[in-house]
Amino acid sequence: MKIAVDAMGGDNAPEEIVKGVSEARKALPDVEFILYGKKDEIAKYMDDFRNVKVVHTDEVITMEDEPVKAVRRKKNSSMILAAQAVKNGDADAIFSAGNTGALLAAGLFIIGRIKGLDRPGMTTTLPSLKGENDNFTMLDVGANAESKAKNLHDFAILGNFYGTNVMHVTNPRIALLNNGTEYDKGDKIHKEAYQLLKNDSSLNFVGNIESRELLNGTADVVVTDGFTGNAVLKNIEGTALSMLKLVKETIMNNGVKGKMGGLLLKSAFSQIKDQMDYSKQGGAVLLGVKAPVVKAHGSSNANQVKNALVQVHEIVDSKLVKNLADYFEMHLESIKQDDVDKENENN
Amino acid sequence: MKIAVDAMGGDNAPEEIVKGVSEARKALPDVEFILYGKKDEIAKYMDDFRNVKVVHTDEVITMEDEPVKAVRRKKNSSMILAAQAVKNGDADAIFSAGNTGALLAAGLFIIGRIKGLDRPGMTTTLPSLKGENDNFTMLDVGANAESKAKNLHDFAILGNFYGTNVMHVTNPRIALLNNGTEYDKGDKIHKEAYQLLKNDSSLNFVGNIESRELLNGTADVVVTDGFTGNAVLKNIEGTALSMLKLVKETIMNNGVKGKMGGLLLKSAFSQIKDQMDYSKQGGAVLLGVKAPVVKAHGSSNANQVKNALVQVHEIVDSKLVKNLADYFEMHLESIKQDDVDKENENN
Repeated sequence: MKIAVDAMGGDNAPEEIVKGVSEARKALPDVEFILYGKKDEIAKYMDDFRNVKVVHTDEVITMEDEPVKAVRRKKNSSMILAAQAVKNGDADAIFSAGNTGALLAAGLFIIGRIKGLDRPGMTTTLPSLKGENDNFTMLDVGANAESKAKNLHDFAILGNFYGTNVMHVTNPRIALLNNGTEYDKGDKIHKEAYQLLKNDSSLNFVGNIESRELLNGTADVVVTDGFTGNAVLKNIEGTALSMLKLVKETIMNNGVKGKMGGLLLKSAFSQIKDQMDYSKQGGAVLLGVKAPVVKAHGSSNANQVKNALVQVHEIVDSKLVKNLADYFEMHLESIKQDDVDKENENN
Repeated sequence: MKIAVDAMGGDNAPEEIVKGVSEARKALPDVEFILYGKKDEIAKYMDDFRNVKVVHTDEVITMEDEPVKAVRRKKNSSMILAAQAVKNGDADAIFSAGNTGALLAAGLFIIGRIKGLDRPGMTTTLPSLKGENDNFTMLDVGANAESKAKNLHDFAILGNFYGTNVMHVTNPRIALLNNGTEYDKGDKIHKEAYQLLKNDSSLNFVGNIESRELLNGTADVVVTDGFTGNAVLKNIEGTALSMLKLVKETIMNNGVKGKMGGLLLKSAFSQIKDQMDYSKQGGAVLLGVKAPVVKAHGSSNANQVKNALVQVHEIVDSKLVKNLADYFEMHLESIKQDDVDKENENN
């Protein structure tokens, strides 16, 4: 297996990326890592190049670059060369901690969509604090600013395969993020999506879920439009961080009494941080393109990079992309037939 | 001043509602409270009817009732009679802890929209954990499932008046909830809304805000479409509660060491709950109708009911509704002129 790594993407690149690759190498002896980036800088953080190949390039897409422009113009950047390698079959998957928008654009325009699927979706795995499983996956968390009901249905299918193949959940419980649990809640798109999900017998659809319930483990796959999904994901992050900070500050401001308690609670806090740290599950995955595209947080450290690379390995190993491609290929004819039927109805 | 109170709405009605009125009465000697509901049940929780009038009715809109149907059919319910009283000028404002959808429908269809405004919006005040002010207000949090850019602009105007008149913030900082801070982020509606807000010189527009930043006090009024706003509001609630629960459980599971710390931290936790308790700020307010419509949480206790009634008093006192009506009346001509201009452009 070959994984193309954008060694220059991320706030702590290339140091943490290269160190993460070194760590991942121990866990994944069957992987060859192809690192794209500045050879000299990469070499600073790696002595031994066992299972590692470096492809030198000076060009880098920065966090500030406008995504689509960057993908078009910076053809020799580390990210684009890595994506090209995947497209050309020289690598099985791409990993980056760089500019999210640019990676999305590279996934869509260079690696390309699976045939029969209109809109790929970005999925992130988050912790479930209650319920039967430790995690759930949510998509789309921002690949699309606008979605139709059909796209939401496709996200459910993508998530269903991801849940089964990669998260190893049997018959994942799929819920639609909506502003109420009743079937007729939400705007037109969500009402339509509810019906599409309900009528798809291949999905274990458990109904609408409200954002209040997300962390309570009542669903394994949460389907949402990219705008709402992005807002909710960032809000979970922000609120969780704010709450932990508030608890800490309040303890410290409670004087000696508080400080004693605070000291005693140190191990409790580190446990909580660990439980909430969803980068343990790896990065965000662009589902619906012809190869795994995995994005780690820009601020990732070596360990988080390693986790994401283990996840990339798991995805490639699971044959997820082939299963998705087969599914959409198989349903291509019925989709086309639907269009013909609709066309006839309209005439 | 007269406040119409739906004495039967809410999980703990009429007991907590009636007790809340008793408490509010001490703080608001200039208010006459008109309580709508079952006379005998109300009398159980109130000995002295000073400044209180009871209008008896047996009919009640339940939490399970379908909102629009309930408003149409349960014409003698406590909520609808209270709304009718406001419409007829027998009361200045309505308060309920009952069925949110029904109260919205009663506000829109019975009390009615302000002239010149297409879509009223629901606003909620939330705590700012950092920044110069202790709170911010966010709207729309769910009055509308679908919004146009123009509606978002109107929400900003409503929020601006609310911030100035009721929250007493000078020149409130207004931000648009979006999936990135750059001006060109979001779907078509949010891009358009950004331009409308930027070009309205009457607003102190500070740009886009991401949901991650909401609690950090960088804005006084956060403008959002009702679908996203509802999702984010419920998500803040859910995540904050989950985090507090997680912290507590982790402490308890840390054995004696943890338990000691937990004991010492009890006062810290009660401080945090207090800081996060946004019902201190009162209820959610439907802005853009011809009288204040205030909704407290269904689970409100007497003290929370009292807080919401103090808020109702504040809103009536502030002449907010008159100021809004004057504004939209004044801009009615320019709105019409815009339509004419657009019409001409299209021809």
